[in-house]
Amino acid sequence: MTKTLAINAGSSTLKWKLFSMPDETVIASGLVDRLNLPGSIFTVKRPDAEKYQVTQDNIDYRLAAAMVLSHLKEAGIVKHLHEITGIGHRVVAGGEIFDDSAVITDESLKQIHSLAQYAPLHNPIEAQYIEIFQQLLPEAKQVAVFDTSLYTNMPKLNYLYPIPYEYYEKFGARKYGAHGTSHRYVAHRTAELLGKPLEDLKLITLHLGSGSSISAFDHGKVIDTSMGFTPLAGVMMGTRSGDIDASLVTFLAEKLNINMNEMIDILNHKSGLLGISQLSPDQRDLEDAEATNPQAKLALDMFVNRVVRYVGTYVAELNGLDALVFTAGSGENGIGMRQRIADQLSYFGVKIDPEKNDFRGKERVVSPDDAPVTVMVVPTNEELMIARDVARLS
Amino acid sequence: MTKTLAINAGSSTLKWKLFSMPDETVIASGLVDRLNLPGSIFTVKRPDAEKYQVTQDNIDYRLAAAMVLSHLKEAGIVKHLHEITGIGHRVVAGGEIFDDSAVITDESLKQIHSLAQYAPLHNPIEAQYIEIFQQLLPEAKQVAVFDTSLYTNMPKLNYLYPIPYEYYEKFGARKYGAHGTSHRYVAHRTAELLGKPLEDLKLITLHLGSGSSISAFDHGKVIDTSMGFTPLAGVMMGTRSGDIDASLVTFLAEKLNINMNEMIDILNHKSGLLGISQLSPDQRDLEDAEATNPQAKLALDMFVNRVVRYVGTYVAELNGLDALVFTAGSGENGIGMRQRIADQLSYFGVKIDPEKNDFRGKERVVSPDDAPVTVMVVPTNEELMIARDVARLS
Repeated sequence: MTKTLAINAGSSTLKWKLFSMPDETVIASGLVDRLNLPGSIFTVKRPDAEKYQVTQDNIDYRLAAAMVLSHLKEAGIVKHLHEITGIGHRVVAGGEIFDDSAVITDESLKQIHSLAQYAPLHNPIEAQYIEIFQQLLPEAKQVAVFDTSLYTNMPKLNYLYPIPYEYYEKFGARKYGAHGTSHRYVAHRTAELLGKPLEDLKLITLHLGSGSSISAFDHGKVIDTSMGFTPLAGVMMGTRSGDIDASLVTFLAEKLNINMNEMIDILNHKSGLLGISQLSPDQRDLEDAEATNPQAKLALDMFVNRVVRYVGTYVAELNGLDALVFTAGSGENGIGMRQRIADQLSYFGVKIDPEKNDFRGKERVVSPDDAPVTVMVVPTNEELMIARDVARLS
Repeated sequence: MTKTLAINAGSSTLKWKLFSMPDETVIASGLVDRLNLPGSIFTVKRPDAEKYQVTQDNIDYRLAAAMVLSHLKEAGIVKHLHEITGIGHRVVAGGEIFDDSAVITDESLKQIHSLAQYAPLHNPIEAQYIEIFQQLLPEAKQVAVFDTSLYTNMPKLNYLYPIPYEYYEKFGARKYGAHGTSHRYVAHRTAELLGKPLEDLKLITLHLGSGSSISAFDHGKVIDTSMGFTPLAGVMMGTRSGDIDASLVTFLAEKLNINMNEMIDILNHKSGLLGISQLSPDQRDLEDAEATNPQAKLALDMFVNRVVRYVGTYVAELNGLDALVFTAGSGENGIGMRQRIADQLSYFGVKIDPEKNDFRGKERVVSPDDAPVTVMVVPTNEELMIARDVARLS
């Protein structure tokens, strides 16, 4: 038995999970929140112990990592830190370089840095954590698990944009997708649950949360996904617009008298469900409000419509459909949302049994036994997928 | 019997057709090309006469209109100009004001001018032609027929973008669509040919030409269309990108060191089939080249894929499909293109009989008799639709 640490680092949070491998049990998990801010919060959870939480001002990245390791030792979660033989890091952008997770070497680390132009808010921080753990636990094997690698080898006609071809060659302007670790986990788990090889299935996986994306798997290979060059594209999200007419960027920037980067910022942070509802980016808030608030209802109806559109797109690209799989916050817990989406897809043979659908956050088939398309809920587990990749590549 | 003139004016061309109404026969048609340039070309065609053509430098808008009318009289096509009792004008942008064609009054003309922000290259010229014909033929009733009016009253959730709602209220940022006159003609003609009321049908109309758009009709009402706030959005076109990640506007403008309007210009004029193939925006050129030119094949494969994606989107929104209808240059004449598109839609019950499909430019059912979805070719006739609207509103 070995222990593997899965790291999911953002600009203001450090999420982690410690797994025992290969049995895949979670030994402990935690979150360091409000990094580099007054009142940073350090939390650790264990299956059979009280939650541990301390608050301390301005915990920075290095201190956060060190606190995680020293707590693991001090609380007796591990006896010696060298029990942790592998560390896996979620990395947002793998560009065209990484079509699989990769063991960290001087070269791969340099490449992660070089891909910062595709994820300026993420890759530099993630690379920094890799370097910090290299210093803190130099014996552990480190692996980078990319959000994009699932999509690197999609059919070229799907990942290219109809723009001058040299922009792809010179600047890497193509669809990279995102949420790949989630879609990969969910697709494989769906095949396991159905007792069929993934290679025999046409699947659409719906990762619906504050960020949402939809992917299409054709006989074991992902062929398309809704996020694009960046995670702005695709379906409508909590604060992101998803697909719009590109002309709106210039039209609105001129009307608002702002520059184009400020406009893209609005499309990322003030649009989507929040922009339409003028109330909240959270589907639960909008569901609570929609009976009396027409804008909240409009926002939810638009969200359902955008998801339905993409399902249609991917049924066309797959030229068929065996299973439709819901995951992530709203996909796992949005009972009403699942029903609304399925109700509009009856022509494709998608049907939900309201009784089977009446639960949250568990693996379950929710379509009737005789339905042409199997509709499932499969809670995502990106951290487990990261730990598995560490094991696979070690 | 009355005579109606249908005018389709662009920045460098004036296309026209003279109809006898209500029998809808074409008396004459013509084109004035290369307006305001050296070597302007004035052409008139009649069903039973030689083509008439003269060349003259720098014909301007007023002179072009005057030449059309004086030729009609001098060539004996009409005895007196007052036989022309109605003139219909294609107008690109009707905004939210015009949900139908409209008789020209002082007020409607002012509104067409005021909508110039949505079609700066078109509305001002079209308004100018209306004013010229008001002076040349003051007795004729003039009607504006808008490319967008078909789409004005689509379901709100389809025409809104997931951006801050106030941008719709303040700036009219919504989906307006385009090619509406063509889709409207084709949808109605399809219903006639099928001997069923349009109100009983779920239709997808594919206007495929150098500009392409796809519309969905649900029981007589259009519910969605692929073009957006501008005609840049939707499927890939000859030189237009269609849908892309909006983030690419800023990313590429920065890489290319150009401003965002220059970037939008590239997306309109140097993208699409031309951008990918690096050869031609014309599908026929690419079909000739694709056996030996991989970029030409890639461009065509991408085009087919983008059309297939939209058909899937609209089958989902319609939650069904009775007929799929091809029109415009490539839709009417692209035998191979129709086959390629249909081949990828077999799951939806779309099937083409290669023998029935082996023709160009005629009204025809091309699916087998027992196919679940009727696939048709219906040549578009925007000028006839314009003449009919003049008759309807007179």
